[in-house]
Amino acid sequence: MSLIENLNWRYATKRMNGEAVPKDKLTVILEAIRLTATSYGLQTHKVFAVTNAEIKTQLQAAAYGQAQLVESDVVLVFAVQQTITEADVDAYFDNIKVTRNMDITPLEGYKQMMKGTVTGMNAEQQNVWASKQAYIALGFAMAAAADQKVDSCPMEGFNREKFDEILGLNAKGYTSTVLLPLGFRSTEDFMANLPKVRKTIDELVEYIS
Amino acid sequence: MSLIENLNWRYATKRMNGEAVPKDKLTVILEAIRLTATSYGLQTHKVFAVTNAEIKTQLQAAAYGQAQLVESDVVLVFAVQQTITEADVDAYFDNIKVTRNMDITPLEGYKQMMKGTVTGMNAEQQNVWASKQAYIALGFAMAAAADQKVDSCPMEGFNREKFDEILGLNAKGYTSTVLLPLGFRSTEDFMANLPKVRKTIDELVEYIS
Repeated sequence: MSLIENLNWRYATKRMNGEAVPKDKLTVILEAIRLTATSYGLQTHKVFAVTNAEIKTQLQAAAYGQAQLVESDVVLVFAVQQTITEADVDAYFDNIKVTRNMDITPLEGYKQMMKGTVTGMNAEQQNVWASKQAYIALGFAMAAAADQKVDSCPMEGFNREKFDEILGLNAKGYTSTVLLPLGFRSTEDFMANLPKVRKTIDELVEYIS
Repeated sequence: MSLIENLNWRYATKRMNGEAVPKDKLTVILEAIRLTATSYGLQTHKVFAVTNAEIKTQLQAAAYGQAQLVESDVVLVFAVQQTITEADVDAYFDNIKVTRNMDITPLEGYKQMMKGTVTGMNAEQQNVWASKQAYIALGFAMAAAADQKVDSCPMEGFNREKFDEILGLNAKGYTSTVLLPLGFRSTEDFMANLPKVRKTIDELVEYIS
């Protein structure tokens, strides 16, 4: 199936059947997240993959009782760093040094510029910036899930504070930003067969030629 | 090529060769953007596809002189609505009515809830919310570009006010949020052959089982 056929196949799956996502398919989805482009390459988010049934039930209560939290197999919780510091920039450049086996001394100016950008933002600005990058990863994850014929449902409707508390995210330096339950559509989901509601390409795209 | 191979093939292409993106490939990329999931399905962004050479040169000056602005074939400027109103929610439900050929009266409560969410945000909150959705579309666009073997480079480093002014976006009710120049990598781009710098899957993903 082509990418466009896959993207037409996917939809925000409200009801899932509890079936397990095969490990090889989950691996592809997580690898797509890992390969996601992020600002400066910093990857200021982390993904918590929740499969524990009891914890999923707690999460459901903190997400207005939505069924996907428990009917999915894995709930991907995209979380962002609570603070982004110069140490994160240092770690990134250390990774460049090792991955590319190169002298990073000539990159010192670029490194300092990145540190200036990162430390020039307040906590709220950092959260917005990191969240946007996490949403690119969300997009990659949804495309990969569709590619693997795994259903997913992007979700913003949940209590972030409660999710952080249930998963102990703050103690790990993270705070939740968006969710993507993964599983398989239920035959009871009447949404599965409804046509997609989208703007036309002419409404969405304007050429400046 | 598999999705993962495509995502490994892509990289943030700093230097492009000016070659035109074939229309069928551009169509796939724009269709992926159109099919993107967005919060409530509202699609509060629009994509301005800039091909005009003179305007691209002006945009380059407002983007710290970065070469992709003029060496790419098409610069996709993702812009978000300056305000999101009850009329946008009405338009969405009108679209549901037509697309699904159904009576939307039973959805009245859901519609009012959406209106409450939208009007409950101030301008800054709406901008952040709409921008996050645009970043999902950015992710879909990058994945589609890789699928079509078209190079791209996501860019946040540009002057939004100047872009808005050059493209007359405010008069159209939009403001720019992120860019994706599309084209083909130049043989002069030494970045093309460097290994990707990414966190390991163990650093990026934590299981809660």
